Amino acid sequence: MERIVMKFGGSSVATTEKIAHVAQLIVAEVKKGNEVAVIVSAMGKTTDTLLALANDLNPHASKRELDMLLMTGEQVTASLLALAIEARGHKAKSFTGWQAGVRTESVYGDARIEDVQAAKVQSTITSGGVAVITGFQGIDIDGELTTLGRGGSDTSAVAVAIGISATICDIYTDVEGVFTTDPRVVSSAVQLHEISYDEMLELANLGAGVLHPRAVEFAKNHQMPLRVRPAHKKGKGTTIKEEVNLEANLSVRGIAFEQNVARITIMYETPYNGSLASIFTTLANHHLNVDIIVQSIQQDLQPSVSFSVKKEDFDEVIHVLDANKSNLRYQRLDFEEGLAKVSIVGSGMVSNPGVAAEMFDALRVATIPIKMVSTSEIKVSVVVPESAMVEAVEVLHAKFKLHTAI
Amino acid sequence: MERIVMKFGGSSVATTEKIAHVAQLIVAEVKKGNEVAVIVSAMGKTTDTLLALANDLNPHASKRELDMLLMTGEQVTASLLALAIEARGHKAKSFTGWQAGVRTESVYGDARIEDVQAAKVQSTITSGGVAVITGFQGIDIDGELTTLGRGGSDTSAVAVAIGISATICDIYTDVEGVFTTDPRVVSSAVQLHEISYDEMLELANLGAGVLHPRAVEFAKNHQMPLRVRPAHKKGKGTTIKEEVNLEANLSVRGIAFEQNVARITIMYETPYNGSLASIFTTLANHHLNVDIIVQSIQQDLQPSVSFSVKKEDFDEVIHVLDANKSNLRYQRLDFEEGLAKVSIVGSGMVSNPGVAAEMFDALRVATIPIKMVSTSEIKVSVVVPESAMVEAVEVLHAKFKLHTAI
Repeated sequence: MERIVMKFGGSSVATTEKIAHVAQLIVAEVKKGNEVAVIVSAMGKTTDTLLALANDLNPHASKRELDMLLMTGEQVTASLLALAIEARGHKAKSFTGWQAGVRTESVYGDARIEDVQAAKVQSTITSGGVAVITGFQGIDIDGELTTLGRGGSDTSAVAVAIGISATICDIYTDVEGVFTTDPRVVSSAVQLHEISYDEMLELANLGAGVLHPRAVEFAKNHQMPLRVRPAHKKGKGTTIKEEVNLEANLSVRGIAFEQNVARITIMYETPYNGSLASIFTTLANHHLNVDIIVQSIQQDLQPSVSFSVKKEDFDEVIHVLDANKSNLRYQRLDFEEGLAKVSIVGSGMVSNPGVAAEMFDALRVATIPIKMVSTSEIKVSVVVPESAMVEAVEVLHAKFKLHTAI
Repeated sequence: MERIVMKFGGSSVATTEKIAHVAQLIVAEVKKGNEVAVIVSAMGKTTDTLLALANDLNPHASKRELDMLLMTGEQVTASLLALAIEARGHKAKSFTGWQAGVRTESVYGDARIEDVQAAKVQSTITSGGVAVITGFQGIDIDGELTTLGRGGSDTSAVAVAIGISATICDIYTDVEGVFTTDPRVVSSAVQLHEISYDEMLELANLGAGVLHPRAVEFAKNHQMPLRVRPAHKKGKGTTIKEEVNLEANLSVRGIAFEQNVARITIMYETPYNGSLASIFTTLANHHLNVDIIVQSIQQDLQPSVSFSVKKEDFDEVIHVLDANKSNLRYQRLDFEEGLAKVSIVGSGMVSNPGVAAEMFDALRVATIPIKMVSTSEIKVSVVVPESAMVEAVEVLHAKFKLHTAI
């Protein structure tokens, strides 16, 4: 007997037919003798529909009321799924986030989970029932209801799994698992059977999009094994855990990529110490996110700092920098749009210092120019022309033999 | 400054336009300096839509899960209405039933309110905010969420009004108030400005349909003044309270009527004491509701008991009586369909014993046959042919000068 958490996202429960299918998957686990807690998101486009209603009435809706509104979506799914399980002759109880004991900080719209007091869920599953819990939501210390923001249901699933000491937290999705890179773009991409938390974190942050980084980080901190599995197909999925058994000890495990990147460079007459802090504080105050930052001060060269931003933020960043030119004391700006970021990720890179060099060499051979470079212990990112992005991914996928990954 | 509760039913909040209008009504009360708590139902047909989804998945849905599902409807309305009030520059907070402290017994689908712990609502309204509360729902002692069943939102409104010691509980509806009889049927019907709890209870039970009897009874027990008001028109509505100031001391205050009534008479060879109890226990065990019951045992006449049932229950009642003929030890059944019930209601009838006689005389003059009679302290009901129902109501409306009522 295992104690498992199963999480189903919005597209897996978009219709009553899909909910009925999900109920079958759950009942199959119960029949194996497993104790099952389930986390669900709102059905398909429910959230968008509710947001449209809110927008009709108040385009500047308060976060508190948006939370109250949106959290009804998960409650509808949870009760319908409980009914569908009951229809198959098994016991099931739906719980709102607060009923399941999900305590969060006192923030609307983007709260972090502080604690899960899972006594109710525990007593339901130990007595043979399925606990179906609304993802994405919790309660603060004052009894105010909160939502967790983007990727919240993944985080709910991990938190409940930790709260009930589950053996594994299964995240059911539209995809078959985690791949070496996006299989829609690179046909030789292969599914990974296992990947480490750190690798998954880098891939998730880089836009691989299968799992929310907060959920992965939460799982890592509590050593809760995660598994990404297909909801509407057979398949073992990909397990995310601390130690990965690499039969073939590949240093690179995956390649992430992201379009719509722009580079901005700020040039100074003379270097001044406060510059970096002032620039990025100013941008942060305007809620503008910066990704890669590169600064290299050399004798004989004009001092400068370069950074990448998303295309959608580009105009606003330029506007803010212009408006603050005198405060920031820079001479001029240089920028380039139409770029993309390509990153190789792998825990094995820590002990393999030649990996970055191999990457640059492969891109040189393919005559793909590198505009920026950023490295971390388990990742190397390069900024390249957007037009060369797919070719760069393919070249690197082949170079690091990712088609043989497992 | 007054502290008021405003309740809006499903049809008053069926669209975002209607919600915006309701927000205006609320803001108008706030601008008068009043403290306002609002109770809302689910938007229009939301409940039916949710029930259809549930039925897709499980035609024998558990009441617990139906409660979890349906209560989302009110939460959507409450948060949207709070947003609409905020859009008009006023503070508002939505609360679920449990957040508003509505405690119920541990029954799903038809729970009764036990208590309202309204501290949160109170602190919201005393600080100048509008508290918007989901009707129809509460929480039991184990933290399970419950719904109140039919008319539940009216009851929620009264309970919250009592909990916060409101000066009045305004029930906004599609109608202009309580009328002497249904104005769609009798053109001379007039609106009453005031009516007593007891009269309203009799009218509500008799199908006047404006207010749920549970809500009226609850208000009566706590002496909470109720007012039925039009949501989408100007109008003072009808106030329901203990003492009614009758300038013209009319003994009859209203006439209720109901179609689709059938009479069943059970005849015995010899009277036997247990008969009444056995019959009505048997019918109650089959969830068959009986309305008027008339028994009159006389020397020289064959003993019998007559009662009225709704047309939709008629076949089932006959079937159950047939199946239990030997237990119930009766000789034969007699019945008549195509009947209607007409009732005159008025607290003044207690001290006015001639009222029933006036009613019978008016019907005799109009040659309307009376099939059954039932009386209480403030009501006389007669069963007449359905074809004569409207005429009977008109005759009685004129006889008791209800067109002059106030």
